[in-house]
Amino acid sequence: MKYREIVEKTIAAIVPTDREAMEQARHYQEQLAKPPRSLGQLEEIGIRLAGMTGKVHNELAKRRIVVLCADNGVWDEGVSSAPRSVTLAQTINLTRGLTGASTLAKHFGDEMCVVDVGVHCDVPCPDVINRKVAYGTKNFRYEPAMTREQAYQAICAGIEQADLARQEGVDILGVGEMGVGNTTTSSAVLAVLTGLSIEEVTGRGGGLLDKDFQHKKEVIAEAIRRHQPDAQDPVDVLSKVGGFDLCAMCGVFLGAAANRIPVVIDGFISVVAALCAARLSSHAKEYFFPSHASFELGYAHAIKELELEPFLLLEMRLGEGSGCPLAFLTIEAACAIMNEMGTFAEAAIDDTYLEEIRRGDQFTVQ
Amino acid sequence: MKYREIVEKTIAAIVPTDREAMEQARHYQEQLAKPPRSLGQLEEIGIRLAGMTGKVHNELAKRRIVVLCADNGVWDEGVSSAPRSVTLAQTINLTRGLTGASTLAKHFGDEMCVVDVGVHCDVPCPDVINRKVAYGTKNFRYEPAMTREQAYQAICAGIEQADLARQEGVDILGVGEMGVGNTTTSSAVLAVLTGLSIEEVTGRGGGLLDKDFQHKKEVIAEAIRRHQPDAQDPVDVLSKVGGFDLCAMCGVFLGAAANRIPVVIDGFISVVAALCAARLSSHAKEYFFPSHASFELGYAHAIKELELEPFLLLEMRLGEGSGCPLAFLTIEAACAIMNEMGTFAEAAIDDTYLEEIRRGDQFTVQ
Repeated sequence: MKYREIVEKTIAAIVPTDREAMEQARHYQEQLAKPPRSLGQLEEIGIRLAGMTGKVHNELAKRRIVVLCADNGVWDEGVSSAPRSVTLAQTINLTRGLTGASTLAKHFGDEMCVVDVGVHCDVPCPDVINRKVAYGTKNFRYEPAMTREQAYQAICAGIEQADLARQEGVDILGVGEMGVGNTTTSSAVLAVLTGLSIEEVTGRGGGLLDKDFQHKKEVIAEAIRRHQPDAQDPVDVLSKVGGFDLCAMCGVFLGAAANRIPVVIDGFISVVAALCAARLSSHAKEYFFPSHASFELGYAHAIKELELEPFLLLEMRLGEGSGCPLAFLTIEAACAIMNEMGTFAEAAIDDTYLEEIRRGDQFTVQ
Repeated sequence: MKYREIVEKTIAAIVPTDREAMEQARHYQEQLAKPPRSLGQLEEIGIRLAGMTGKVHNELAKRRIVVLCADNGVWDEGVSSAPRSVTLAQTINLTRGLTGASTLAKHFGDEMCVVDVGVHCDVPCPDVINRKVAYGTKNFRYEPAMTREQAYQAICAGIEQADLARQEGVDILGVGEMGVGNTTTSSAVLAVLTGLSIEEVTGRGGGLLDKDFQHKKEVIAEAIRRHQPDAQDPVDVLSKVGGFDLCAMCGVFLGAAANRIPVVIDGFISVVAALCAARLSSHAKEYFFPSHASFELGYAHAIKELELEPFLLLEMRLGEGSGCPLAFLTIEAACAIMNEMGTFAEAAIDDTYLEEIRRGDQFTVQ
């Protein structure tokens, strides 16, 4: 099957979440021993999760973060404060538990899958999955980042990881990235998809100085003017001003939705990839969970576009999937409430039972 | 020693956090393999923790939530949607892992210490620690909630738990409560301490209807007019319009600071108790961590007064310490970053090392 067909088949497989399971979950929540709605988002998360899996009671025993790694040709323009070599080094370090995200994943028992979809050189590390589409994208200031066929190929690399996760019984996925220059590509894609100005969606990434920050915005503007990406066609946008990492991440989001696996959005690059997936399939976002509110400018616009609200306020802007481990734990807390908390009947909050307590039938002071 | 003397001795024992350890922690963070400040609050939390314990590297192996339980005489005024008997039932259920907070604590391996400081009847459950000051407070619409001596006694019950935590090697404490009517007492205390209007600090608690909500605010206004609590004297405020739970929680906050144990604020009642502690000792708040932004009106004012920003946005308003387990995990994540993440040297993000990688000295493809 050709890459494009795989993508189209995946999109066609995405169905709405299970409204009946959600209704059952909502009904069950009402019986728990607490004032109605007093657990707020922990209740909502439990209800949404039921819709995704079709089950009222869920567990997150097997949690996996997929990290898509690629270089971006636009790095040549000086749009990043980091040397290009950081992509390679951190791609390898992700497998060794040394980076921010992999430290947290290892600490909290989450699996990490690191995929090379376009690092600028061969990655000499057997723990990195090789799905390289090319040695980095082209510099989109002058030419489209990639061909349309390459975009489909990269999306398929992400879909493959979601399919694999289903086969291996993964309960929840998270989507991260590593790729110097990818806040530039993400801002470009977001500007086109939303029609927002480049000023509104472009931040300083790893920490650009004023002069370079101005140049970053000019490069994005020039690329959009030159290639005229079609906002109605996310694959056109991704191929002209995106990156292999963004494409593959979009593929994980699509594949997760098609496989009915809940999937967590990390920060800015991750949310832009999620938005691409949501534009390709109107039901895809029903399977997405937010995590933290990234400090990178542009994040807030993208998550709002997805009608999701982040529940962690940590001013993080590291990427790599670093927001996923704490989000997994928050969603696990919602599962614990559904699976382990007492109902009004079990908690015996009624006067008959309390009379019994007072008479000492249930408890005796030792 | 009299109760008042114990409280005064505890306040005198509170010293500023260790600025040198904080500086060392900040310096160590700068060496970690990430763009400066890109882990946001996870970095700040690690630095603050170093100041509290005096150690750059910390672990949260033993985590405990102390839940202070008491009834409030003002319940007679119909200020709560719950029957009074709920305090007794949930005090017992907290020890059985059935309530919201205890479900989460049990799931994530946190200890829970449940203390009766004023439930309206005897608590027939051996797992509840009996430090009852009285069978509930007086109805503060007509008379002061308690005597000044009773307030000191209740504060001491909290200090005792913090001292015990230090003896038993607890790494971090959380402070929760159970007491029908305690959003009313908390709003009254907050209004006096801050000078904010009753409208600004009073919410619907468990879920009051319009008519009862209006009455709740009138009762608070009447109590403040009648008893004229002295805003400069937190013990006067607590004794006139507070509750035994608020007093004892304030004691845990003071005792934690005196023992240099990091302590987590839960929701609205918890933050008002923390504010009382901060007014009694100017350095106490250096040992406090926020958790979630409670949905109960008034929380935002109190946490701002403490110059803290909550990092969990979950629209929760359950109390009991229910925000503490996820806060503990967030603080644990900050510890993992300090203890386990690679430095620039270990991550080898420099060109020499990358040349070695390219030559295959470090990794070979198997």
